[in-house]
Amino acid sequence: MKTTERTNRGRKALLAMIVSGTALGWFASPADAQQEGRRRRGAAQEAKAVELAPDQVAQLTKIANERRLNVDDLLAAAKTYTPSGRHDEYVLFSSGGQSGQVFAIGVPSMRLLRSIAVFTPESWQGYGFAGKDDPVIERLKFKGTLNAWGDTHHPALSETKGDYDGQYLFIGDKANARVAVIDLRDWETKQIVKNPLTISDHGASFVTPDTDYIIEGGQYGTVLGYGYAPPEDYQKSYRGMVTMWKFDREKGRIDETKSFALELPPYWQDLADAGKLASDGYFFVNSFNTELATGGIEKGNPPFEAGVSKRDMDYLHIVDWKKAEQVFKSGKAKTINGFPVIGLDTSIAEGLLYFAPEPKSPHGVDVTPDGKFMVVAGKLDPHVTVYSIDKVKKAIAEKKYSGKDAYGVPILDFDAVMEAQVELGLGPLHTQFDNKGYAYTSLFLDSAVARWSLGGDFAKLHSEQPWKLVTKTPVQYNIGHLSAAEGDTVSPDGNYLIAMNKWSVDRFLCTGPLLPQNFQLVDIAAPGTTMPVLYDMPVGVGEPHYCQMIKADKLKSWPVYPEVGWNTHTQSLDPRAPKKGEEGVTRDGNKVLVKSIAIRSHFTPEHVEVNEGDIVTWRIVAAETTQDATHGFCIGAYNINLSLEPGEFEEVTFVADKPGTYPFYCTEFCSALHLEMMGYLHVKPKSGSVSDAAH
Amino acid sequence: MKTTERTNRGRKALLAMIVSGTALGWFASPADAQQEGRRRRGAAQEAKAVELAPDQVAQLTKIANERRLNVDDLLAAAKTYTPSGRHDEYVLFSSGGQSGQVFAIGVPSMRLLRSIAVFTPESWQGYGFAGKDDPVIERLKFKGTLNAWGDTHHPALSETKGDYDGQYLFIGDKANARVAVIDLRDWETKQIVKNPLTISDHGASFVTPDTDYIIEGGQYGTVLGYGYAPPEDYQKSYRGMVTMWKFDREKGRIDETKSFALELPPYWQDLADAGKLASDGYFFVNSFNTELATGGIEKGNPPFEAGVSKRDMDYLHIVDWKKAEQVFKSGKAKTINGFPVIGLDTSIAEGLLYFAPEPKSPHGVDVTPDGKFMVVAGKLDPHVTVYSIDKVKKAIAEKKYSGKDAYGVPILDFDAVMEAQVELGLGPLHTQFDNKGYAYTSLFLDSAVARWSLGGDFAKLHSEQPWKLVTKTPVQYNIGHLSAAEGDTVSPDGNYLIAMNKWSVDRFLCTGPLLPQNFQLVDIAAPGTTMPVLYDMPVGVGEPHYCQMIKADKLKSWPVYPEVGWNTHTQSLDPRAPKKGEEGVTRDGNKVLVKSIAIRSHFTPEHVEVNEGDIVTWRIVAAETTQDATHGFCIGAYNINLSLEPGEFEEVTFVADKPGTYPFYCTEFCSALHLEMMGYLHVKPKSGSVSDAAH
Repeated sequence: MKTTERTNRGRKALLAMIVSGTALGWFASPADAQQEGRRRRGAAQEAKAVELAPDQVAQLTKIANERRLNVDDLLAAAKTYTPSGRHDEYVLFSSGGQSGQVFAIGVPSMRLLRSIAVFTPESWQGYGFAGKDDPVIERLKFKGTLNAWGDTHHPALSETKGDYDGQYLFIGDKANARVAVIDLRDWETKQIVKNPLTISDHGASFVTPDTDYIIEGGQYGTVLGYGYAPPEDYQKSYRGMVTMWKFDREKGRIDETKSFALELPPYWQDLADAGKLASDGYFFVNSFNTELATGGIEKGNPPFEAGVSKRDMDYLHIVDWKKAEQVFKSGKAKTINGFPVIGLDTSIAEGLLYFAPEPKSPHGVDVTPDGKFMVVAGKLDPHVTVYSIDKVKKAIAEKKYSGKDAYGVPILDFDAVMEAQVELGLGPLHTQFDNKGYAYTSLFLDSAVARWSLGGDFAKLHSEQPWKLVTKTPVQYNIGHLSAAEGDTVSPDGNYLIAMNKWSVDRFLCTGPLLPQNFQLVDIAAPGTTMPVLYDMPVGVGEPHYCQMIKADKLKSWPVYPEVGWNTHTQSLDPRAPKKGEEGVTRDGNKVLVKSIAIRSHFTPEHVEVNEGDIVTWRIVAAETTQDATHGFCIGAYNINLSLEPGEFEEVTFVADKPGTYPFYCTEFCSALHLEMMGYLHVKPKSGSVSDAAH
Repeated sequence: MKTTERTNRGRKALLAMIVSGTALGWFASPADAQQEGRRRRGAAQEAKAVELAPDQVAQLTKIANERRLNVDDLLAAAKTYTPSGRHDEYVLFSSGGQSGQVFAIGVPSMRLLRSIAVFTPESWQGYGFAGKDDPVIERLKFKGTLNAWGDTHHPALSETKGDYDGQYLFIGDKANARVAVIDLRDWETKQIVKNPLTISDHGASFVTPDTDYIIEGGQYGTVLGYGYAPPEDYQKSYRGMVTMWKFDREKGRIDETKSFALELPPYWQDLADAGKLASDGYFFVNSFNTELATGGIEKGNPPFEAGVSKRDMDYLHIVDWKKAEQVFKSGKAKTINGFPVIGLDTSIAEGLLYFAPEPKSPHGVDVTPDGKFMVVAGKLDPHVTVYSIDKVKKAIAEKKYSGKDAYGVPILDFDAVMEAQVELGLGPLHTQFDNKGYAYTSLFLDSAVARWSLGGDFAKLHSEQPWKLVTKTPVQYNIGHLSAAEGDTVSPDGNYLIAMNKWSVDRFLCTGPLLPQNFQLVDIAAPGTTMPVLYDMPVGVGEPHYCQMIKADKLKSWPVYPEVGWNTHTQSLDPRAPKKGEEGVTRDGNKVLVKSIAIRSHFTPEHVEVNEGDIVTWRIVAAETTQDATHGFCIGAYNINLSLEPGEFEEVTFVADKPGTYPFYCTEFCSALHLEMMGYLHVKPKSGSVSDAAH
């Protein structure tokens, strides 16, 4: 066939390079060259200040009119558009809600940079798809059930002296009362701990100013230690709790043996925040259902939504955690389900726990950057209530109580500890701060963000009257949490704020009955009443709950793993990782060990022959050191898929229980010959006969 | 305590409304009012053409300089920025690669509107978290193994007369050789079929012009029917295949009983495309590895990447599917693993299958909008090769063969069927079309999109010489597929093109060693050499493979389910759905039936008491009719989470095998009293003794 010999320019030469192996490097080079070129062009462009010539203004105006953009839209576009190759200023680490994951979003472009698998197995990341002893699957089990999802709520970046340090991220799972530790060097979940006291939580996670502890507050009253009691026994047998997980920064892990909890009355503990600077050593937890309502609409009782909201005041919990740590260390904790718990009586006797009245159906408690004030938002009270830590300390010292609750906890006199009440509007939930002496509170029922002026030392930073509403910006719709740039630290940045709106209704194209949430980027750079919405970002991969925004340059992430053969679980070189020349298949009885290397663009070995029933352990390393040269490794029908980032080592064990011939292949596009990066696992049927259905 | 009686304005009135139930409607109203207000303001703004006053130009210039934007950036920003509440023009349905999902992205804003769970359980959508008989989990099982992920490759929108009709979306899973059916009324996966012949595939899914069939091509040679054979028997025992899944549009399901396959030589069949108009009745499948290489680097053989790429020509498979359908219906198919397969000998005898030589390491085959030409890109050939369907038909009629392959399939003479070869650059992969007579081909090795001119009748639409390269736009980096607006239909739109780049390297903030992909939006509206990149979208939730872009107004999605009590699996009202007044718990032996209603903001019943070991069936309906009023329903530690969109009914069954008191709660933020929307499942321990660890 003469046509098969047709020579097209370049083709033969290219093939020769591939076969000789020289193409491997060559494949990467056009991209590298372009990248460098663009970087240089970018730098040249940046040096010159833009001036818009009349024809350019005309061109812009034409597009604006075609696309029905007004001047504000053009300004917002210019404030958020992030050109090809330019990096964002901030990273938003957002809970993924019931998706169980964490999302990382660039600000101001509002682009989803990455999902991080946490409580839900995720195959792109090879998270939970590593065979029968998958370490992820193992730690998601509870009493034999795989709880393969989470309801992620509050992400907490690790802090040093009350400021984000960019090292770790923690996040709580409301559905299953778990806390996860994510290492921000490789953006992977390294640890998940299950709370030994409660099935579900809410107030996780929050860190103390140097990340000594991660706070996990509870929510719905429960019989501590996974116990059972009928609803009639609520007041007697149910309890609340807050757990202090000790963080070992050196190891990058929670140390469960040095962690403890405090027993609390069975109110519904809600959000928490750690004190800092002036309030360092304390933390604060909201509560509701001090009514001890137990619902029971099916018996004609008021449903929870009504019963829980009857009283005008609930209790802000004020906990002296440094003293609690001493009490725990001195052996005064009891043990529930094997876990040390400081009993309520001990907390009262030792002066660890005080209440302050807080109006009404409280939700968020947020400490001001200087640590001097705690801002509480009661969702059925149009005000936020501001408490002074100095006044709290004084009231404790002077025993200014207005009484005790049913469990004997002293209640500080409201007027003695309250600094201010600021009327904002309907449904205040959460508060964050900027660098200009303003606070920002989400108003759920108003669907708005309120900017208001702080008092105290903050009054020097702005020209407003202290403790006053300054302006409100409508958001679409039903805002829950909000997050300002580093807005819950000792040194907020200002600049940007995210409104995390729960409903988008018809703001985006209809995606069926299940709609995205709406993250709105709000420009808080200008003082006073100017506070426009710049951008709407649909979030259609879960319902995020809370997020934190960190300066991007604080993150020191690894572009590739430090060495080839890296164990990402231990964050160290793994001696088991196969080296070049060690590839092969060995057998010990019915145990088969495969040592495999993946490099552009082949696996070695390419054929692995085993017998039905063999227990196969497959060690594989990605022998790559180039950024983004990730390989995947999947075995069809065996539920195995790994993401092998440059340098990564993984070990997978599975039982070869299904005879047949199974392709394995690279699932992450790695080169022009990526499709050819494959091999076969041959599982020989037990009978010895060829199970060949076709012929 | 006097302070608890403090009355803040509005608070008491609000509470009264909540308790009386009138607040339910009221909660929704501020959002609705704002929305309406914004719509009206929007309309007023839109009526007036924008003119930029000098101070506004100055303001824009100032922002541009602060953010280092040049004029092209400002124009790109104006072309993509989509103001709050404005909808996108197009929806991109993209495979999610190894995430196993489908992503829907708005164009031109490049915002991720929604992830659709397909092959991987996903808890936000309540997909795969419905208890022990979860229908999703059941259909993901294969020989007892739960294959809880997929490697989604090619989405295919349903078509009518070769044009997208917006009704259904199909997608293939390369890892496990499965095809899924998504209903675009509610954007949910309704069906997954597992290929009965092969473990993995590649060329799925592609539809015939009226969606009579969904084409699933294979890839790696296999022993059909999940058989086993050692690599030595490759030529004898391994085969390729292509499956024709019959689609029943009325039922919205694949009809497995009316589907069939064609046996093919064990070349690696790759992409497919159905003919249309002039080529209606045919489909085309690429292949590579006509070398029949079996790799074996571990034995000193050339690895697959080299062995598979030796020959200069592989074979374009030309299949007469309308004739094949008749052959199948006339009973001439054999049966493999219970599935009808037209044998290779039958295909040859009946004239169903012809080959045409195609250079080199072919990847994409794409039929021009008029159906007259098939464009083949060989990734190691700098040209695309264009075949004429008229010439193919003539060559078949005149038996213009250059020989037969090793399996006896006639090979059409290359020069007799080839229309043109167009030199484009290095690593051409895939081709799409616009409305101006241009074709667009992705160049992997060049990292570029090539625009080139079509010949034939298309030459009337442009002013270029036919079959010539017009321009190339660099993209960052390593482009795989591309997708133009309706660019693979009989009537492409032009306007926009997406470059699906596999590597982003350092284009975005470093997200650890695992990086996002980069979807770049390319402006193809202007003819000639102008073809700028407008926007970079990081895709950090999976590695998408292919996508299709549909006009948004073709989608007729449901904002809420048609009736309260809707079964989303059957897409009909379910008689089992509890109605108001029917709520409660009944028992039959150890079987407990819970009838539950979720409505803002309570569940009825709120307490469910069962005994350890009971089999609990929980029927629950979301009695909501307001758009976005979605509820979640989770039971902590029982791995259950449902997404109950307005009107949705679900039934969950589980064994209450873990004694204790388990909160269940609403996981989707539904109102100001969402946190109060909860209840308890009390699982009484078998012993009858209260398992109360705390007291």
